[in-house]
Amino acid sequence: MAARGRSERFLVTSVGVDGRARRPDELAVEEPLTVQLDGVTVTTTMRTPGHDYELAVGFCHCEGLLAGATVTGVRYCANGSAVASEFNVVSVDTGGRAPQPRPRVGNTTSSCGLCGNDAIDELCARLSPLPATTPIDPAVLLAVPGHVRGGQGLFDSTGAVHAAAAFTADGTVLTMREDVGRHNALDKVVGRMLFDGGLPATGLGLFVSGRASFEMVQKAWAAGFGTLVAVSAPTALAVHTARRAGLTLAGFVRADRLNIYSPVRL
Amino acid sequence: MAARGRSERFLVTSVGVDGRARRPDELAVEEPLTVQLDGVTVTTTMRTPGHDYELAVGFCHCEGLLAGATVTGVRYCANGSAVASEFNVVSVDTGGRAPQPRPRVGNTTSSCGLCGNDAIDELCARLSPLPATTPIDPAVLLAVPGHVRGGQGLFDSTGAVHAAAAFTADGTVLTMREDVGRHNALDKVVGRMLFDGGLPATGLGLFVSGRASFEMVQKAWAAGFGTLVAVSAPTALAVHTARRAGLTLAGFVRADRLNIYSPVRL
Repeated sequence: MAARGRSERFLVTSVGVDGRARRPDELAVEEPLTVQLDGVTVTTTMRTPGHDYELAVGFCHCEGLLAGATVTGVRYCANGSAVASEFNVVSVDTGGRAPQPRPRVGNTTSSCGLCGNDAIDELCARLSPLPATTPIDPAVLLAVPGHVRGGQGLFDSTGAVHAAAAFTADGTVLTMREDVGRHNALDKVVGRMLFDGGLPATGLGLFVSGRASFEMVQKAWAAGFGTLVAVSAPTALAVHTARRAGLTLAGFVRADRLNIYSPVRL
Repeated sequence: MAARGRSERFLVTSVGVDGRARRPDELAVEEPLTVQLDGVTVTTTMRTPGHDYELAVGFCHCEGLLAGATVTGVRYCANGSAVASEFNVVSVDTGGRAPQPRPRVGNTTSSCGLCGNDAIDELCARLSPLPATTPIDPAVLLAVPGHVRGGQGLFDSTGAVHAAAAFTADGTVLTMREDVGRHNALDKVVGRMLFDGGLPATGLGLFVSGRASFEMVQKAWAAGFGTLVAVSAPTALAVHTARRAGLTLAGFVRADRLNIYSPVRL
């Protein structure tokens, strides 16, 4: 059985212009997690172990698979044995109230439309525009990466995981998660909020440590966040989607400056 | 129809401690591409348009879908019309010689095993260990990011795309591709090499601008690269996989230093 921790120590060779040295290095653990909804497999994702229930439930919520159905149970399971499945299968149950999941093909969980506009149209058919709320002060957004940074323990030890965090209008971090997959970190935050009765996340902001792609905007919208802050740049499709959603999208955060990509005008 | 370029210009609001300004910003285009193999959809991925044939063929090769079958044709197609599908569907044909693709579920294209070790075992069943070749001089590996950097035009204008590149033992870059998806950039490089009769890539190195996850090692192995250099850190599973494959895995490249994670000893 693979290591169950979130990181694993290796002895590596550090090579530099001044010679070679053997030294220990801590690397992020990556293991597949299969998510089942009412007994049907809906995804397998490479994730950092831990907060697996949150990941499974957050994924189902963000991808629209629950369609409003209440989660009645979450457990490790494959053929009835959590141990046999090495804690790499999580079953989410709604007692059959969620729509029967359609098996999806390929490595993208959304946007099976023929083009980006179709993908946005699909989302608009599923999700309502976000309610208008008081915009979060850009000075607060500028400070959020620093607030989150203090909690990125796995990043400190491995240098190779993403973070996502929910925060309030005054910049207080409510929930923060780390994962080798940036989508997973986001899903874990949303799953935690669902367990806590905190969805939709109206009035709250969502921070992600990487770029803002279409799928990150989609997930933020599905969870009801009014603001998404990405450390790096968004894609063009992410901006188009955020504008249709009524989501404030900030990115390219530097020490004293960031860009607002949506709305068109502050 | 969405923009067909690789980047799109937006007017954004730059907010800093010294005030606000409206200015143009160039963002990477992200559009879904559906890949079909002998008429069966095998994946939909969010990609930067361009080099779509390479992406489709490289994906099929790296994921083991061709199983040695020769590609007899590649074309834009959906219901017979490239225009109707907005150049977002690519059909790869082998005249039915590739195994009938099994629809796969979820957002991971590989590693449907129950744990990471199962995922590695699956690869070992499909791929032979890489042939022993003369290791590439670490000094060459240290210089590769700089060689690639000069060609990252889309990164220069958008700041938000990944790069992958094939290079020789003396550090010469043979093929470089950029994409919003790091897997896509790699698949495009491999697809180009397949078209050029350059696979397996024995004796060559593969550079990736981000981290080395399990899937990146899997793809490098499938294409026959003996060396993978990632700017950032690998995951633990990526290291275990590289060691089983006989792949040299370097990462965490800084100006004058990098780590060798595989083999265990240089």
